[in-house]
Amino acid sequence: MASDLVSQLSLKNGGKILLAVMDGVGDLPITEFGGLTPLEKAETPNMDRLAAGGALGQQCPVGRGITPGSGPGHLALFGYDPVKYLVGRGALAALGIGFQLKHGDLAARINFCTLGEDGVILDRRAGRISTDLCIELVNQLKEVSVPGVEVFVEPVKEHRACVVFRGAGLSEHIHDTDPGLTGEKPVPVTATDSDAVLAVSVVDEFINKSMAILKDKSPANGLLLRGFALHKDLPAMQDRYKLNPAAVALYPMYRGVASLAGMEQFQSDPSDLSGEVVAVNNALKAGKDFVFLHHKYTDSSGEDGDHERKVREIEKFDRVIPELLQCGFDVICITGDHSTPCPMKLHSWHPVPVLIHGGPQRTGWSSRFTEREAASGALGTFKGSELMPLLLAAAGRLAKFGA
Amino acid sequence: MASDLVSQLSLKNGGKILLAVMDGVGDLPITEFGGLTPLEKAETPNMDRLAAGGALGQQCPVGRGITPGSGPGHLALFGYDPVKYLVGRGALAALGIGFQLKHGDLAARINFCTLGEDGVILDRRAGRISTDLCIELVNQLKEVSVPGVEVFVEPVKEHRACVVFRGAGLSEHIHDTDPGLTGEKPVPVTATDSDAVLAVSVVDEFINKSMAILKDKSPANGLLLRGFALHKDLPAMQDRYKLNPAAVALYPMYRGVASLAGMEQFQSDPSDLSGEVVAVNNALKAGKDFVFLHHKYTDSSGEDGDHERKVREIEKFDRVIPELLQCGFDVICITGDHSTPCPMKLHSWHPVPVLIHGGPQRTGWSSRFTEREAASGALGTFKGSELMPLLLAAAGRLAKFGA
Repeated sequence: MASDLVSQLSLKNGGKILLAVMDGVGDLPITEFGGLTPLEKAETPNMDRLAAGGALGQQCPVGRGITPGSGPGHLALFGYDPVKYLVGRGALAALGIGFQLKHGDLAARINFCTLGEDGVILDRRAGRISTDLCIELVNQLKEVSVPGVEVFVEPVKEHRACVVFRGAGLSEHIHDTDPGLTGEKPVPVTATDSDAVLAVSVVDEFINKSMAILKDKSPANGLLLRGFALHKDLPAMQDRYKLNPAAVALYPMYRGVASLAGMEQFQSDPSDLSGEVVAVNNALKAGKDFVFLHHKYTDSSGEDGDHERKVREIEKFDRVIPELLQCGFDVICITGDHSTPCPMKLHSWHPVPVLIHGGPQRTGWSSRFTEREAASGALGTFKGSELMPLLLAAAGRLAKFGA
Repeated sequence: MASDLVSQLSLKNGGKILLAVMDGVGDLPITEFGGLTPLEKAETPNMDRLAAGGALGQQCPVGRGITPGSGPGHLALFGYDPVKYLVGRGALAALGIGFQLKHGDLAARINFCTLGEDGVILDRRAGRISTDLCIELVNQLKEVSVPGVEVFVEPVKEHRACVVFRGAGLSEHIHDTDPGLTGEKPVPVTATDSDAVLAVSVVDEFINKSMAILKDKSPANGLLLRGFALHKDLPAMQDRYKLNPAAVALYPMYRGVASLAGMEQFQSDPSDLSGEVVAVNNALKAGKDFVFLHHKYTDSSGEDGDHERKVREIEKFDRVIPELLQCGFDVICITGDHSTPCPMKLHSWHPVPVLIHGGPQRTGWSSRFTEREAASGALGTFKGSELMPLLLAAAGRLAKFGA
């Protein structure tokens, strides 16, 4: 369906929406659980109640069989076609630290590394230097200038930093200079497409001047660039859906994607789920009518293959639901940005269960929020980017189409 | 899926198809029914048998979360992308009274109204004048001519009429002149887009000349225009699917949409379900191989919030099924053009249950035709415009694609 249509039909007023994302929540049957998934194994009395009083379905973030990265997975949840609006790693890194990217900026991730005397990489992370040292090095790299463009170098964490080039005619079609393994030299800056001649020369000059500054330092005497990404403005949710959106997320990357869609960030204090609930409340008090809440640790436990911990993370999330219910949302949606099955220790393509509570729904079909119940739920199986119209409709924020 | 492909694969011969539409049939759990929907509450022994011997699924007429008007809802059922082939109110009104719209015609609805001495609207419907008076007024307005275009004014019913302008270069991008409330003057004719300069001058001249004719009459001394719609020819079902299609519908609007798709109308006598069944039979005898049958009152009772009446309307439809089965169709489909849940008293975005009986199907999965059974039926959840290929396939009217 044309997102234009949803945009045309969006109404300025209506209910308040909470989109709660348990990152990577979908899973597979776990042998040790007798074939139950972590969602099935977990004790989730609050989600069970929401399931009974709401409607279930399952969504494929990008498409059938496609395993999404976190960027595409979240963009789909926010209603953006993740293929059309692909956001590269470099841009996500810059956005994640609050850097205000402009349309046409070229961003890349920096890893400080340790090089041997022959120039080969001894450690791709320079022994995970402290963030303080990272900041010190970045401050020196801020001196680097490249004619024709503005250069911004910003620290991220430990050995990670990022660089943004601002100027006309840049392209993201550049190979990573990080070969991905030790014992090799950094890859020379090369284009993957003919439109990147200017960008290659800019990046090359930046690397050469930076290497000259770093060469006598220890342990970080070199740098690797990867994830080149040209930033393209997204149509903000304010314009697209007439929403006033907010994001509550502990991790920079998710804040980054959210800010791309125009969401204002609300900081969590303390930096855990209880703090996130406070921030959600603050967002509503500040007049927001759409809040994206991100719970990271369901994904981390999936990536670690730790199904017991995933169950605990699901239960932890379940326990804050009563507080979330008291915030005053009209529509509450719980889903994930993709599945991260513990047996795979990776993101996967499996559909992600969705629960929508609030607004008129075909209720009473399910008594639990699980993959199995979701697959035969009232909402059916749909594309991730179709979730937003379902939430807007439930909140009374979509007009009728045609006569 | 490309409708071009379906068109290419369509075969000239094959089974006869009945598409029976219970308008607005999908619903929500009704508290007074202990959480059952009207479909679940109704006693429908005939549909139950069809469900057991056929396959179920659910369709979203336009898209997830999108509430369709009757026009888009029906176009989707006939296999047309309702976003691409949007039909405006004015065109539907003209088609509904049997006016043969041509490609490029600009149609609008007319309401005769009562204006005060200061020109403000006292009654937007002129006290619902009789249809006879409407015809008399329209006959006088038929005298109005506007240079450069042909003008057709036609009565509809009571205070309602319609006007069609035929000529080159017209546009539908014109504001309604009906402000939608009394105590205000009619809205001057204005364009919503720059391509409507000619159309605005044409419409303005028509209104001025009409107002001059009406000004001393009572109670209808003015007119309001709304729903400007430029008619675009649709590819007819004859060409698209190699079908010879017919429509049986009591209401002008549905006959209008059906005629857009190339269906021949068969009149129902008496004007009720029993008469409709006779008309369906007549269509088959006349050599038709596709019949669209429209049952209106499931929608009306939903709009009135009368769940008891909706149950009765469903049961009434169920009782004519044995006669429909005797007509000799090879494939019978029962669905709706959208949901009209009684608790909402409005059209809604909720998926619509679909039943297909006939042709090879995964039968024996369901014992009832309900929203719940449909959501986990063999056909899955699909877009409304994907129904036609399913029906053609069941009727053996679609060739294999590729070798």
